[in-house]
Amino acid sequence: MSKVEIVEVAPRDGLQNIARFVPTEDKISFIRKLRATGIERMEIGSFVSPKAIPQMSDMEEVVKGLGPMPGLRTVALVPNSKGASRAIASGISDLIFVISMSEAHNMSNVRRSVDASIADFGRTLAEIDPEKKLSIRIGLATTFHCPFVGVMDEVEVLRTMCKIVALREGIELTLADTTGMAEPQHVGRFARRCLAEFGNSVQWSFHGHDTAGFGIANVLAALDAGVRSFDGAAAGLGGCPFAPGATGNIATEDLVYLFSRMGIETGIDLAKLLEVAEIAASLSPTPTGSHALAMPRARVLAGGGRLSA
Amino acid sequence: MSKVEIVEVAPRDGLQNIARFVPTEDKISFIRKLRATGIERMEIGSFVSPKAIPQMSDMEEVVKGLGPMPGLRTVALVPNSKGASRAIASGISDLIFVISMSEAHNMSNVRRSVDASIADFGRTLAEIDPEKKLSIRIGLATTFHCPFVGVMDEVEVLRTMCKIVALREGIELTLADTTGMAEPQHVGRFARRCLAEFGNSVQWSFHGHDTAGFGIANVLAALDAGVRSFDGAAAGLGGCPFAPGATGNIATEDLVYLFSRMGIETGIDLAKLLEVAEIAASLSPTPTGSHALAMPRARVLAGGGRLSA
Repeated sequence: MSKVEIVEVAPRDGLQNIARFVPTEDKISFIRKLRATGIERMEIGSFVSPKAIPQMSDMEEVVKGLGPMPGLRTVALVPNSKGASRAIASGISDLIFVISMSEAHNMSNVRRSVDASIADFGRTLAEIDPEKKLSIRIGLATTFHCPFVGVMDEVEVLRTMCKIVALREGIELTLADTTGMAEPQHVGRFARRCLAEFGNSVQWSFHGHDTAGFGIANVLAALDAGVRSFDGAAAGLGGCPFAPGATGNIATEDLVYLFSRMGIETGIDLAKLLEVAEIAASLSPTPTGSHALAMPRARVLAGGGRLSA
Repeated sequence: MSKVEIVEVAPRDGLQNIARFVPTEDKISFIRKLRATGIERMEIGSFVSPKAIPQMSDMEEVVKGLGPMPGLRTVALVPNSKGASRAIASGISDLIFVISMSEAHNMSNVRRSVDASIADFGRTLAEIDPEKKLSIRIGLATTFHCPFVGVMDEVEVLRTMCKIVALREGIELTLADTTGMAEPQHVGRFARRCLAEFGNSVQWSFHGHDTAGFGIANVLAALDAGVRSFDGAAAGLGGCPFAPGATGNIATEDLVYLFSRMGIETGIDLAKLLEVAEIAASLSPTPTGSHALAMPRARVLAGGGRLSA
């Protein structure tokens, strides 16, 4: 293993958790700067109801303003067929749907049962993508731990995953530690089990938070199980408005620093990323959870080596 | 494996890194409250020159004020035979000496070579403990990463460790990630190597920081290698004045939360500990790195279970 993928989610998962509306041109600039660090896949926003999440009300303008982004897979979150149609009309072909593995969390999040969400997802897929040309990612919220239930039952989660996988070949499933309270052995064991059960019919990724300080340990557990794609948010922006107590996403720069120390390629320029992470941090009204950003810059850039000065 | 030991170091490693002098009676109260959480070994302070670290100038009064502490191993840091004699005269029989594995760091820390420090340690041992009745712990600073050198050479560190082990049977060696920049695979690989080379002739412990967000991952790597004793500081107090950029110790409550989630006993009452950690955090002029303290209390205390209310 010499290369992993990091999926940047700050423009979506970060900005939708900041109360104020970030102007369209600032979003575009932010996405462009993130792309310039070498990031090759990015969640750029959500085609959701402007009433529900006003921060994302300018998605069409953002996509139009960005124009073609060679080498970048631009991913958008969509909650339903309406959002998916808007995204596709804008020219987006990489979509992420979120379905919670916990009934209680799904109900709190979208006010319907998990089965109803899966059925709706199936109908949406048939409607928007009859020729199966889109890339579809499902964020499996509360895969490991739910704010209302506690630790999730692994067999029940696997059963739910089977229903989703049955709807589409070659789908990507993102094992999401929504609360940031997944215990690393659980993450490793469950990821290993997923890869054994579903194997290569599914693409795998891990989305974590650092709420309990387990963020990097969970990434390493998923890596050890065979996962090769990891979500990060510049500066550790983000959170989950429907998962009280959850802190921001694992910082992209913490992931890039970790992998660089391990000799694993990410294709991302850490020095450039730290500069963009400064911008990301400045957008947040509260301190973010980035470690690399809090460390002396020269120390981070020295990697495991001696300081040059 | 069903039990690990957590060594509380906040009264020593935490308080000596806070600029202001904490009054003697507050130190005593803090130590008593920590003990009441179930902690069975604690570094209570340093018998160092009051000129070098004025925060620790009242060690004799602290020990006298504490009186007998049944069930608690009270450990004191000593830099030399003078400090050791003072500690022993106070009634302390558990001593920790710190020797850096890096020449540059040892020179910066105590202004002499590593070999000179080891020779001095040997002379001190012969002088203060001819009958070998004391418990001796050596904090191996910069075992993995040095602020001046970068990643440490494993063979060189092992060679240095051999010289120390040769001076005393049954010694405890604390593998210390002084900068908090040790990479988890390095910690796991090196700890495994240490246990294989020295085996049961040495007692092992791990001391980490969360500077890069690797703190918990490093603890798990050491645990996986066979280490069963871990340093923590309530609220994540601490740091290293001679390791620029290093943040506080791994928070004791983060360790207790981790192990409780893993089903591993620590003998420490998390609810009580969180209350003492609040006190510890209030002593620090800057925010500390504790995760468990920042999480909603009910969530932490629910462990992996559902919230009761």
